[in-house]
Amino acid sequence: MKKTLFATPQDAEAAFYDAFVRRDLEAMMEVWSDDDDSYCVHPGGARISGLENIRESWRRIFAGGQDLRFSLREARHIHTMMLAVHSVYEHIAVAGQSRAQQPVVATNIYQRSERGWRMLAHHAAAAPASAQPERGTEPATKTLH
Amino acid sequence: MKKTLFATPQDAEAAFYDAFVRRDLEAMMEVWSDDDDSYCVHPGGARISGLENIRESWRRIFAGGQDLRFSLREARHIHTMMLAVHSVYEHIAVAGQSRAQQPVVATNIYQRSERGWRMLAHHAAAAPASAQPERGTEPATKTLH
Repeated sequence: MKKTLFATPQDAEAAFYDAFVRRDLEAMMEVWSDDDDSYCVHPGGARISGLENIRESWRRIFAGGQDLRFSLREARHIHTMMLAVHSVYEHIAVAGQSRAQQPVVATNIYQRSERGWRMLAHHAAAAPASAQPERGTEPATKTLH
Repeated sequence: MKKTLFATPQDAEAAFYDAFVRRDLEAMMEVWSDDDDSYCVHPGGARISGLENIRESWRRIFAGGQDLRFSLREARHIHTMMLAVHSVYEHIAVAGQSRAQQPVVATNIYQRSERGWRMLAHHAAAAPASAQPERGTEPATKTLH
């Protein structure tokens, strides 16, 4: 049973990034929906489904031990009664490194459950560092679309 | 005014990939929602917002003139009254090339409008070629999560 009730998708999102920064695996998994359809795509990675696999992926990331700070920019929210879609740019800074990291564009999907809002999907992908995001940027040439 | 009414998210998705294969820009834009919040992330690319920018991105891709075939695998669908989330692996073949392309993992989000279902978001990212998708695959090491 989840202990925390997130009253809004924003509350769930804040808890997601807070758990990420604190590398708190239990807090991270509190955010996730128990739904079998939950999935997670880390940048450059495969789709990971199932709570146990999602948990293991975060455990490995947190074991890396990097002290990260997130700045979320250009957030767009689409809310309906049962689902919410948040599209954000994650600008990530690593403590002790002055070099800017490649930004990440993330689609975060939240689902309303009997006990508040939970993360149903996190799909993250590295975006061009020089992106002018809202223009018709050329897609990378490595792939076919 | 859109001419085609897609009665289900599956109908909209079929039309999306059909337009992609045929490189039919008008048919592609028929699928997209007019919603200002619509966005598209091509693999490795920035987030593209706004119908005109989304249209321009597809125009450029179609101008590449490659004869593509899509095989969609491991589809997962989450449907609610107003939004539908489809997660699929796109396995893409290029006519005349025997080499397998890197698979793409896509989150396709459809929105119910007064005139049927439309694509609200397409977020695509290259996935590892050797992916065993449903296991706890290591994320790529190039990025921080």
